[in-house]
Amino acid sequence: MNGAESLARTLLASGVDTCFANPGTSEMHFVAALDQVPGMRCVLGLAETVVTGCADGYGRMAAKPAATLMHCGPGLANGLANLHNARRAFTPVVNVVGDHATYHRPFDAPLTADTEALARTVSQWVRTSATSLRVGPDGAAAVQAALSAPGQVASLILPADTAWGEGSGVASALPVPERSLVAPDVLARIARLLRNGARSLIFLSNQALSERGLLAARRVADASGADLLTNTQIPRMARGRGRVPVDRLPYPVDSAVKVLAGYQQVLLVASKPPTAFFAYPGKPSLLSPVDALVDVLARPEQDAVAALEALADELGAPRQVVLGSGGGLPEVRAGRFDPVAFAQTLAALLPEECVVVEDAVTSGRALFPPSFQAAPHDWLQITGGAIGHGFPCATGAAVACPGRKVVCLQADGAGMYALPALWTQAREQLDVINVVFANRIYKILQGELLNVGATPGPTSTALFDLARPALDWVKIAQGHGVEAAQARTLEQFADLFRAACKRRGPFLIEFLIEG
Amino acid sequence: MNGAESLARTLLASGVDTCFANPGTSEMHFVAALDQVPGMRCVLGLAETVVTGCADGYGRMAAKPAATLMHCGPGLANGLANLHNARRAFTPVVNVVGDHATYHRPFDAPLTADTEALARTVSQWVRTSATSLRVGPDGAAAVQAALSAPGQVASLILPADTAWGEGSGVASALPVPERSLVAPDVLARIARLLRNGARSLIFLSNQALSERGLLAARRVADASGADLLTNTQIPRMARGRGRVPVDRLPYPVDSAVKVLAGYQQVLLVASKPPTAFFAYPGKPSLLSPVDALVDVLARPEQDAVAALEALADELGAPRQVVLGSGGGLPEVRAGRFDPVAFAQTLAALLPEECVVVEDAVTSGRALFPPSFQAAPHDWLQITGGAIGHGFPCATGAAVACPGRKVVCLQADGAGMYALPALWTQAREQLDVINVVFANRIYKILQGELLNVGATPGPTSTALFDLARPALDWVKIAQGHGVEAAQARTLEQFADLFRAACKRRGPFLIEFLIEG
Repeated sequence: MNGAESLARTLLASGVDTCFANPGTSEMHFVAALDQVPGMRCVLGLAETVVTGCADGYGRMAAKPAATLMHCGPGLANGLANLHNARRAFTPVVNVVGDHATYHRPFDAPLTADTEALARTVSQWVRTSATSLRVGPDGAAAVQAALSAPGQVASLILPADTAWGEGSGVASALPVPERSLVAPDVLARIARLLRNGARSLIFLSNQALSERGLLAARRVADASGADLLTNTQIPRMARGRGRVPVDRLPYPVDSAVKVLAGYQQVLLVASKPPTAFFAYPGKPSLLSPVDALVDVLARPEQDAVAALEALADELGAPRQVVLGSGGGLPEVRAGRFDPVAFAQTLAALLPEECVVVEDAVTSGRALFPPSFQAAPHDWLQITGGAIGHGFPCATGAAVACPGRKVVCLQADGAGMYALPALWTQAREQLDVINVVFANRIYKILQGELLNVGATPGPTSTALFDLARPALDWVKIAQGHGVEAAQARTLEQFADLFRAACKRRGPFLIEFLIEG
Repeated sequence: MNGAESLARTLLASGVDTCFANPGTSEMHFVAALDQVPGMRCVLGLAETVVTGCADGYGRMAAKPAATLMHCGPGLANGLANLHNARRAFTPVVNVVGDHATYHRPFDAPLTADTEALARTVSQWVRTSATSLRVGPDGAAAVQAALSAPGQVASLILPADTAWGEGSGVASALPVPERSLVAPDVLARIARLLRNGARSLIFLSNQALSERGLLAARRVADASGADLLTNTQIPRMARGRGRVPVDRLPYPVDSAVKVLAGYQQVLLVASKPPTAFFAYPGKPSLLSPVDALVDVLARPEQDAVAALEALADELGAPRQVVLGSGGGLPEVRAGRFDPVAFAQTLAALLPEECVVVEDAVTSGRALFPPSFQAAPHDWLQITGGAIGHGFPCATGAAVACPGRKVVCLQADGAGMYALPALWTQAREQLDVINVVFANRIYKILQGELLNVGATPGPTSTALFDLARPALDWVKIAQGHGVEAAQARTLEQFADLFRAACKRRGPFLIEFLIEG
């Protein structure tokens, strides 16, 4: 058994049975090993950013890592952006990257690059296998690292000769450490803060956004009078009817500052402090009031759910949470695109237990409130700001959840970064409804130029314009093997969306947003 | 004048008047500055790999750098692969990357990444401006670095506050050092070697592939009996009628070893030694015979043309070179695709003074010999092995050469990495004929799997298959605003190609290669 085969068998023994791949020559022995080892589902992506975005979507929904298989140097470079998103989402990923044979590196062949340096920028764990005997044990260690709380990108680099040399057999799965518990004195301190009468915000992210985490947070809020809010970038959140409705911090700095004004205490639960996405002259980086106390109930790697439950008990909160009707489900609206009317229409249409993937900052801003009463669903968002995450993340989520519909909400500007994900959806006949918001402009940049105090001129206007020529998303989708149609009104959108819900396999709706 | 404006004006003062851009929020002040500063042509790419590939193609043809404008962290990551190709081609590039404001970095906002570490993997020169006062001088230093022989990727990282803070005005252009000359004793040593009766190969790359370099090399060859060969990866080569015909080292190791067998001396001119692209078990990394002497006439940063001319004089070679007819121009062939018949057909059709960009390893293998007698042209090839280079490189070359037709020879697998370059071609109405070799398979990997001694099984067969579903290149091109048509025979191809030569603006021909 060579190193490559020992890795394939070790990954399976550690529970990793899905591999998103875009291999090259230095990975041929691993591909050959996969021919010999049954049980690994291999999903081809036609560009590395597809592979890594799929691994992110898969890991968020499967709660276990997929493996990637990528080509050395520039191959990995092409996949870094979505690994960056995965790192920010604490998604478990076993990122397998081939490299030149150890003895070939000194010849500086064309593809030679500093693969470790590239991997380090997006990984919490990096290892290059030193010999073929180490490949199996290194594979087991990579899975352990990926699964260690809060979830990590573990990059395993395999020089080609470690793949083709004699391996050391199948390495056993390594134990995954339990999440550490929040110390009792921290719980007591936070409980005291929540009883001191100050106006408090509980700021949630990551594990705290699970159904159980949100229920416990609501108990704490009910017992203490604190408000609940989530971070702007949501790795995964349980939402819809029967789930605790919690809104998210707005992306624009001024709106965020307004939402946070007046809070005297901000208590972080598996979240970083509320921080501006970008700096702007004269605007703050930290968005909570300067005199507010910021304290931490649980760090991302700790057991935030247990901490919230213990805190609720400590505060004497009742076990049961009463969720109001929230005003009922919005109805399908008519007319042209408008963020609120679209959000209401989508909320009315979302199928039961669907997975929503959002990569649409400007068109998606109004989506949250109307969908509190939608059918129960999970919501995944771009977490690291590396746009173009939507199509691949939705593709990976669909691989992880074969019984569930995936709804991908994709901005047109961002959608251009990872088009070949559509082909993987078609190839694997994945149940994804892709909605492209075709406003034909980098709308966010138009706003950001004004934000920095500049007056738009001819160059900036041209640099933000996607209308000359217009992208034809129906043809682009069909070119990748995905059926597609265009909507210009909410009624047309609703008809297409309903039809797409009834069929199997991918579909794309281009929603033309006319200025 | 803020830092951003001082950079824009400094770049212009240093002769950089073209900027390939995919900006984000942290680059807004630079975009705003470009609104104020006339004279910079800004070309939008809808993904960073387009931006960097364009800068590579532009720099190879313009012999001066374009600037890029890219977004922090993951934005740069998306552009690394084509910067890797540019680095391998010694293309001058001024790679401008925005970043978070210096004071914003500690907040670890979502896009925060190690931008310098990413830049270092592909750049010969990296600098982060420390204050807004340094942006102008740093810009001039970046242009100087980019133009320093043999041509470099110079990455200038601009924290947002250095762009919006007060600048120090326009920095003057800095002197570019002359190429260093090859020392007389080296010339004498190489001349002695060429007279010693041993079988010699002169192995050329980079500057030696210019029209003048090739003429001088031919004089040396004629006077000494040595053979001429180019490296497999060609940054730019003057070819066609009236130029010295020199073939390239084949990509497959076995073929390359065969071509190099029997040489007792390999003399390098601006080239690395002949090296295998990948390592394979039991095959060599260095492709020349183990007992051959490898010596260096000129390093890439030296004046290889002057060295070849001095060597020719030293050897007493006549000034005039007689180029044979080479057997005349091949004719347009008929029937299905076949690499040799296609190469002959293309050679017959290439328009005068066109620029050929090749990113098609398997379909392109036979292209060289028939085109020795084609109309005069320049040939640019993928140099770093980071596939997906064709469309963007051709786009940038067309921006650099408005009067010349660009012919982009693009493999279908590799073509999927940078589709949005087609949109830039349409937007700028660039004169590019894109030819996609639609063999619907990762053909090179099929061969490489056999090369490593494996037997194809179901997983590898699926991972190399691009036919399920088939990509529809005509629709993909049309979706990006580029007119397109499919050819299934060489006659159809010739008709489409001739028609495309007569029109202006981009066109795409999908050549369906049926197994």
